[in-house]
Amino acid sequence: MENIEILGLVAATLTTVAFVPQVYKTWKNKSVKDISLSMYTVLLMGLLLWIVYGFYINSLPIIAANIITATLSVLIVITKIEYK
Amino acid sequence: MENIEILGLVAATLTTVAFVPQVYKTWKNKSVKDISLSMYTVLLMGLLLWIVYGFYINSLPIIAANIITATLSVLIVITKIEYK
Repeated sequence: MENIEILGLVAATLTTVAFVPQVYKTWKNKSVKDISLSMYTVLLMGLLLWIVYGFYINSLPIIAANIITATLSVLIVITKIEYK
Repeated sequence: MENIEILGLVAATLTTVAFVPQVYKTWKNKSVKDISLSMYTVLLMGLLLWIVYGFYINSLPIIAANIITATLSVLIVITKIEYK
C-alpha cells in the first residue's frame, strides 16, 4: 500500500472514531442540552450522500468510514431526542 | 461537471456546513458541558491529515472542505476550553 493511501486510511479512521467519545459521553451522562440536533441531522444527510458516492466509485474505505460515522451520528440523534 | 462530482461536492458541503449550527449554539449559549473535547481533538487530527492528503493528490474540494471543518472545530474547541 502506498504512503498516500495509508495517510488517507489514517485520516478516515480518525475522523470516524472521533465520534465515539461523544457517543460515550452522551450515553453516560444522558445530558444533551449543548449538542446541536441540526448539526447531526445535516451531517447525516451528507454522510448518506458520501455512502452513495462510495458505492458509485466503488471505494470500500469511503463506504465503510461513512457507514460507521453515520451509525455513531444516529446514536447521538437518538440520545438527543430521548433526553432533550 | 459529471453527476458523481456534483454528488461529492454536495456531500462535502453538507458534512462541512453541518458544524455551523454547533458553533452557533455553543457560542450563543456559552454552554459546552455536553460536548466531548476528545471528539473534536481527534476530529481535528483527522481533518489535518485530510488537508495534507488533499494537497498530495491536488484536490481543491478535499482541501477546502477540510480547512473549513477544521476551522469550525477549532472554534468549538476554543469555546469548550473557555466555558468548561
